Amino acid sequence: MNSSAPTPADDADLARARPVIAAVREGAPLIHCLTATVSMQLVADGLLAAGARPMMTETLDEAPVVTTLADALLVNLGTLSTDGMAGIPATVEVARCDSRPWVLDPTAIGIAPVRTPLAQKLLGARPAVVRGNASEVMALVGAGTGGRGADSTAAPGSAEQAAREVVRRTGGTVAVSGEVDLVQSPHAQVRLERGSVLLPRVTGTGCLLGALTAACTAVTDDSFAAALAATTWVNLAGELAESRATGPGSFRMQLLDALDEIGRCP
Amino acid sequence: MNSSAPTPADDADLARARPVIAAVREGAPLIHCLTATVSMQLVADGLLAAGARPMMTETLDEAPVVTTLADALLVNLGTLSTDGMAGIPATVEVARCDSRPWVLDPTAIGIAPVRTPLAQKLLGARPAVVRGNASEVMALVGAGTGGRGADSTAAPGSAEQAAREVVRRTGGTVAVSGEVDLVQSPHAQVRLERGSVLLPRVTGTGCLLGALTAACTAVTDDSFAAALAATTWVNLAGELAESRATGPGSFRMQLLDALDEIGRCP
Amino acid sequence: MNSSAPTPADDADLARARPVIAAVREGAPLIHCLTATVSMQLVADGLLAAGARPMMTETLDEAPVVTTLADALLVNLGTLSTDGMAGIPATVEVARCDSRPWVLDPTAIGIAPVRTPLAQKLLGARPAVVRGNASEVMALVGAGTGGRGADSTAAPGSAEQAAREVVRRTGGTVAVSGEVDLVQSPHAQVRLERGSVLLPRVTGTGCLLGALTAACTAVTDDSFAAALAATTWVNLAGELAESRATGPGSFRMQLLDALDEIGRCP
Repeated sequence: MNSSAPTPADDADLARARPVIAAVREGAPLIHCLTATVSMQLVADGLLAAGARPMMTETLDEAPVVTTLADALLVNLGTLSTDGMAGIPATVEVARCDSRPWVLDPTAIGIAPVRTPLAQKLLGARPAVVRGNASEVMALVGAGTGGRGADSTAAPGSAEQAAREVVRRTGGTVAVSGEVDLVQSPHAQVRLERGSVLLPRVTGTGCLLGALTAACTAVTDDSFAAALAATTWVNLAGELAESRATGPGSFRMQLLDALDEIGRCP
Repeated sequence: MNSSAPTPADDADLARARPVIAAVREGAPLIHCLTATVSMQLVADGLLAAGARPMMTETLDEAPVVTTLADALLVNLGTLSTDGMAGIPATVEVARCDSRPWVLDPTAIGIAPVRTPLAQKLLGARPAVVRGNASEVMALVGAGTGGRGADSTAAPGSAEQAAREVVRRTGGTVAVSGEVDLVQSPHAQVRLERGSVLLPRVTGTGCLLGALTAACTAVTDDSFAAALAATTWVNLAGELAESRATGPGSFRMQLLDALDEIGRCP
Repeated sequence: MNSSAPTPADDADLARARPVIAAVREGAPLIHCLTATVSMQLVADGLLAAGARPMMTETLDEAPVVTTLADALLVNLGTLSTDGMAGIPATVEVARCDSRPWVLDPTAIGIAPVRTPLAQKLLGARPAVVRGNASEVMALVGAGTGGRGADSTAAPGSAEQAAREVVRRTGGTVAVSGEVDLVQSPHAQVRLERGSVLLPRVTGTGCLLGALTAACTAVTDDSFAAALAATTWVNLAGELAESRATGPGSFRMQLLDALDEIGRCP
């Protein structure tokens, strides 16, 4: 998709996201991530590349305490461990009580018997942003049958009604990722058709988007601006990385370089 | 080893593996991986690069349920966690009952007191393919003393008798990895002397071979063809990656690009 | 910092570290790592790139047994899991009884309620080397308030008194990492101002330094020489990698190539 990408100078999507991106680099927020084991390293490396700082402890014994150091919290339900099952609800409760922004990424909910009701229950703690694919956002409100593993079996457009329902319950923003991304808040909606076909060829790029969304919520009270900036950041980094990559391995490396590069002064 | 590698056009090993490789790319099978934490990301990225799709949940609460979505199952005993100890037997039982193909990778068995008897017991659930190094395959039938960690202390050739014994018990195929790879079924045997000296310099390339073997079993009922195609795929990707790499870090990146490239039309 | 780096031929830091580096490549020691999930793969890949061999099992059921195969042990408290909480004390006890060298990396201690007292208690088992940032080394002796996540909030210089106190208790060496690294033993002290600003932009480079320190303790009885060689190895690899990198993603890849390259005959 990069062939028709505008140059940075006239890229309206980038112009809109730039203040939030700059604020993340300036503030270097500490993001507590309770996230999938399989993509933990990409999430941490991606946050560092973007200028934020990761922290990943997930046990009930330590996560609720150390989250008080964080500027924002990410809860991603992928590869949910026994430690995570115990640690997540208590950690979210601390974030809720402290009015610390948090992001819910309901990875692979649908038929999974623990994470699906857990995700639905966590909506009550009003995440600033919910980030998921179409199948996941639909499963969150009991629609559809879930995807296959981490992959959506529903088109992004079909999740619009579910996204509006989640927004109604949380008062926050929902970002539905797919070929066309939908960012929906109580008051605004944007569709983005950017990014790279190589993004789903690397494990954890969706998880990284969730973590970067949390980093953006740490630097602005506007959850819609945060979700939109994070989605744009990953999409534009994906376009830049694709233009330099020869396959999924080199794309992964270039993506980290590009996250560091997007939105800097030319 | 790449200096003497034949060109793709006249590579007989590739020609033999190509139909299975093409079927993985066409079918994009969903592979449920209960696998070592340390190499989880390379396994997932390698499956994605090859055109398959990974899923990694391992708890007793969720793994047996979500495995019903999968086209094949990988069980790798490396860095076996408490979650994995509980989740693996029940998940294998679901695969067995559904006649879903599954692959056993008995990583680092020998003196390890939980995984060694577990691996031996799991043989009774008749994995389509067992993939391991010489020490591991020997330990599976009570021969030898095991390796040192994930490394074999036995030559691949010395495992031939053990491989035949495993085949006798499972009715499936055994792939013994090493400088010379041995693929053994009830009716056939192939030795392959391909690959790269850099493959054992990157963590998890053996685990990735096990996962890719599972992906191949998802697209053919012939477990021997599946094991041979996966072994060839990784070996040829290793040769191509070595020809482009300047060390183990760049080799790792090039390996993922090469998995995506091997066997495509020129 | 690489612009002013001396060439390998006249690099006195490298000359001092070279015998230990060569001994690791020659001996290929097996290093048992009980370490943070988030950086497990970089730690393993870094050990392999350096010529050592990793092993990562952490459960109470298996870790104390398999550690008897290892040449040295690393205990890193980052992202401490329930399995790690149970497995670490028993595994350290085996290392202590066997006089096997071990390294303690007290990642992110401070306010974390389990790992902080655990780290302090483990000092009694006399690690050959303690490797941490300034905040972590201070928290180990009850000074300071800890860092923020894995980041130090104290300058390396401020940890000198704490480092001396740890040395007094263990009789071993302490390596305090930062812009200026301090390596302190009962009888010697060195400050190093080498490395790259990109090292803290990649997750787990500190953990890798701890693991490489363990590899060095496996090939020399001199814990000070081991800690100094490992610190130098990572710093010089960082300088070389920075000179070839275009961002944090390519730096990570180049770092692994450079670990394999540093100190080889020109």
